[in-house]
Amino acid sequence: MSEPPRTDSMRALWIEERRLSFRTDLPVPEPPEGEALVRVLRAGICNTDLELLRGYALFTGVPGHEFVGLVERGPERLLGRRVVGEINAACGACPACRAGRRNHCPTRTVLGIAGRNGAFADRLVLPVENLHPVPDAVETDAAVFTEPLAAALRIQEQVPIRAEDRVLVVGDGKIGQLIARTLARTGCNLTVAGRDDAKLDLLIDLGVRTVHPEGITDRAHDVAVECTGDPSGFPAALRALRPGGTLVMKSTYASALTLDAAPIVVDEVTIVGSRCGPFAPALRLLAEGEIDLRGLVHARYAIRDGIAAFEDAARPGTLKVLIDLEEGP
Amino acid sequence: MSEPPRTDSMRALWIEERRLSFRTDLPVPEPPEGEALVRVLRAGICNTDLELLRGYALFTGVPGHEFVGLVERGPERLLGRRVVGEINAACGACPACRAGRRNHCPTRTVLGIAGRNGAFADRLVLPVENLHPVPDAVETDAAVFTEPLAAALRIQEQVPIRAEDRVLVVGDGKIGQLIARTLARTGCNLTVAGRDDAKLDLLIDLGVRTVHPEGITDRAHDVAVECTGDPSGFPAALRALRPGGTLVMKSTYASALTLDAAPIVVDEVTIVGSRCGPFAPALRLLAEGEIDLRGLVHARYAIRDGIAAFEDAARPGTLKVLIDLEEGP
Repeated sequence: MSEPPRTDSMRALWIEERRLSFRTDLPVPEPPEGEALVRVLRAGICNTDLELLRGYALFTGVPGHEFVGLVERGPERLLGRRVVGEINAACGACPACRAGRRNHCPTRTVLGIAGRNGAFADRLVLPVENLHPVPDAVETDAAVFTEPLAAALRIQEQVPIRAEDRVLVVGDGKIGQLIARTLARTGCNLTVAGRDDAKLDLLIDLGVRTVHPEGITDRAHDVAVECTGDPSGFPAALRALRPGGTLVMKSTYASALTLDAAPIVVDEVTIVGSRCGPFAPALRLLAEGEIDLRGLVHARYAIRDGIAAFEDAARPGTLKVLIDLEEGP
Repeated sequence: MSEPPRTDSMRALWIEERRLSFRTDLPVPEPPEGEALVRVLRAGICNTDLELLRGYALFTGVPGHEFVGLVERGPERLLGRRVVGEINAACGACPACRAGRRNHCPTRTVLGIAGRNGAFADRLVLPVENLHPVPDAVETDAAVFTEPLAAALRIQEQVPIRAEDRVLVVGDGKIGQLIARTLARTGCNLTVAGRDDAKLDLLIDLGVRTVHPEGITDRAHDVAVECTGDPSGFPAALRALRPGGTLVMKSTYASALTLDAAPIVVDEVTIVGSRCGPFAPALRLLAEGEIDLRGLVHARYAIRDGIAAFEDAARPGTLKVLIDLEEGP
């Protein structure tokens, strides 16, 4: 008595009311005008995906915004090519878009985060202009890191880092690892604070100085980047800054932050919210082998095991968990 | 049986354990090497003084940091002259001082706020280098506004304001009034939000657009300045910003601020703590009559009535309350 399987249906993970499920009944999306249909090869679980499950952004749909795929329908030049995709789909016509701030378009949708199904599915659609071909030199697993690597590079678009700057990264997790790798390239005086010795060891192997949170030198850094994914990181980053220093906020989380505002005013601290970054330099760095990704992939799951993959990704010791859509069924 | 009055004692207001008292037993301070003795003529009550009484900065001593006085002991060129004084007394030798950030010297004392008695007294001492002669064209009452006017000008040192910027000042109080007057001079598209119609009327008379807080247009301002003196101002200022906008925090208060961090990250907002500013341009603007101070002085008290003066200053409708040290005894 059950319905026959639809031939145009696909596998996907689904978030609804803070619960994740594996579904096989979602229709393959039809790309609207200007968008391409992409078959997802690989996708990465980001902390934001875990926060979506905790209620962040009140998202219902297919999560996932770090992906590599093959273009199945789209412009000739992209057909059959491996691509990565910028996650903000902008209107292109509003004042923010016209001012070059497309990532802040007020009517944008965001892949797997807001108003648009994401990459933990066999197929996704994105505007053609969002897609970037992946250079042959970049393996598919590595290309999954394009989006978070771009987000790490965003920091340097916003806050110029000088070689003499004392920079502290608070957080040794997925994004902290990438931020540390990009900041290390500036030649700045870099320290990463974290609690997980295995994660810190990855950085030590790259020549980055690390410290446990209780070992942070207070009031001694020109720039501090908060990327713990947790409200506790903010006061640690704030304390670490010299007066007149800059605190970069990189974590999005669902909970509230309570802070003492007076030190921000008295010490004339600057706080910079930082989100999505430029894909082209991220892909170039990956193609040139300039970002060492060894040790960053913790595990790989087939999409039917997506719930286990999320549970694994949520464990404290875990770095990047990949969903491999090529592994079936 | 009482002691004879000391001839070297002076009148002063005193804060201790969140209580204000009027004292006549404090000794006239002896200026250390490099400092001058100043007879205070007039001093203004600032919101920070009121916050000190609520426990901010855990200060014990003579409050008051907005003043005009006559130099009684000091270098020849200043003797007998009316002066105003920068409030941060720096060491001059530490890395912050050598980098030109004397206001952030870690061992600084701050007049009437931290480690140094202030201006609600017959005499104060300050480093000679902190003192600025008051041009003859500036009346003593007006010169009291030098310090807060400099603090208002600090905003433009930190955040360039362009004529096309939409700028919102949240707060119509003492510092908000001065901030509005300095920002209006940039030609920017300025709005001041406040709850007190009498205070807003002062701005309307100057041609500044005003609005009640509930009438603020959300996500429509390039820059928002929070100067309500209250944690409630922050979310209003944050909501008012366009993505990528800048929030200037000008209030110091004793209570904690609870906020949702996600919008700061997602909208890539920049938050700039702002404190003390440059005296020279403030004095120049006052000398040239470029800052309209009419209506800003609410009342004037003799120092023996200082407790009543503080009570008056703490009332919601009150603007600047002056302590007149020339009125005796």
